[in-house]
Amino acid sequence: MPPAEPRSLGQRIADTRALLIQPAVDAWVATASQARGDGQSQPYLVPLSFAWIDERAVLALASSSRTAKNLVQHCIARIGMGPTRDIVLLDCVVEQVVKVADAPARMGDGYAAQADWDPREEGDGYVYVVLRPERIQAWRESNELPGRAIMRDGEWAKG
Amino acid sequence: MPPAEPRSLGQRIADTRALLIQPAVDAWVATASQARGDGQSQPYLVPLSFAWIDERAVLALASSSRTAKNLVQHCIARIGMGPTRDIVLLDCVVEQVVKVADAPARMGDGYAAQADWDPREEGDGYVYVVLRPERIQAWRESNELPGRAIMRDGEWAKG
Repeated sequence: MPPAEPRSLGQRIADTRALLIQPAVDAWVATASQARGDGQSQPYLVPLSFAWIDERAVLALASSSRTAKNLVQHCIARIGMGPTRDIVLLDCVVEQVVKVADAPARMGDGYAAQADWDPREEGDGYVYVVLRPERIQAWRESNELPGRAIMRDGEWAKG
Repeated sequence: MPPAEPRSLGQRIADTRALLIQPAVDAWVATASQARGDGQSQPYLVPLSFAWIDERAVLALASSSRTAKNLVQHCIARIGMGPTRDIVLLDCVVEQVVKVADAPARMGDGYAAQADWDPREEGDGYVYVVLRPERIQAWRESNELPGRAIMRDGEWAKG
């Protein structure tokens, strides 16, 4: 079967937005540890529940988790979503880390509505990490590699 | 629907081995860049074709790619596979980086047989990166988090 025609920019953005708000969607979240003295840092990768609220990627994390610690120290995450032949990749920076109990209802309700759990029911120790995407790429087959940047510098690309 | 009963160790290993040799399987490969002077290093994450040859994860990479450069400098990769509710995670170290043209036939043929492309047809500039898994974890739902380490220190767990 020959690959499908590459999607238009508008279609890629529409497909990506549909994925970002999908209920119970998970994301592969890659972070890096603080470097040791020799400049080596450890890549870390976990699958996490994901919510898209007000154009931000919101993760709920135990503040003791390695991903939370890496993000507090480093402020950079790269998030992979979708099956691996229908990729969405987000390069994000940490905008805010807020204790679950202190978060506005909009964030807590929005997270619980999209994710399949509610960290407010877990007691203390959880935070929402709010990530601002700076770049988003979306592609399926190699014929979609050109034009895969659908967001640059925090702005959705214009057709 | 209540979650299924947790799988036995033997079943997890069998399921994981079946996934590792699946044709045209992709993997999310997380690496970290060399740290800058301030100790910050950049997490990197890409989906890549994957082959499992002689108990090693083999990736074929353009030697100019960021993942190849990170692995040559850092020697550590964390690889996520499977849909995000049926996870396999491999913590690996680089064992060998070999130019595609210099690789033994067993490696080139094995890679081409499992992956859906053959880097030997791409001319110069590609390498096989051979990664030795030190730890493998496998789980589906949260009831499978206990016992998720199915390989430790390079050895499959014993039942």
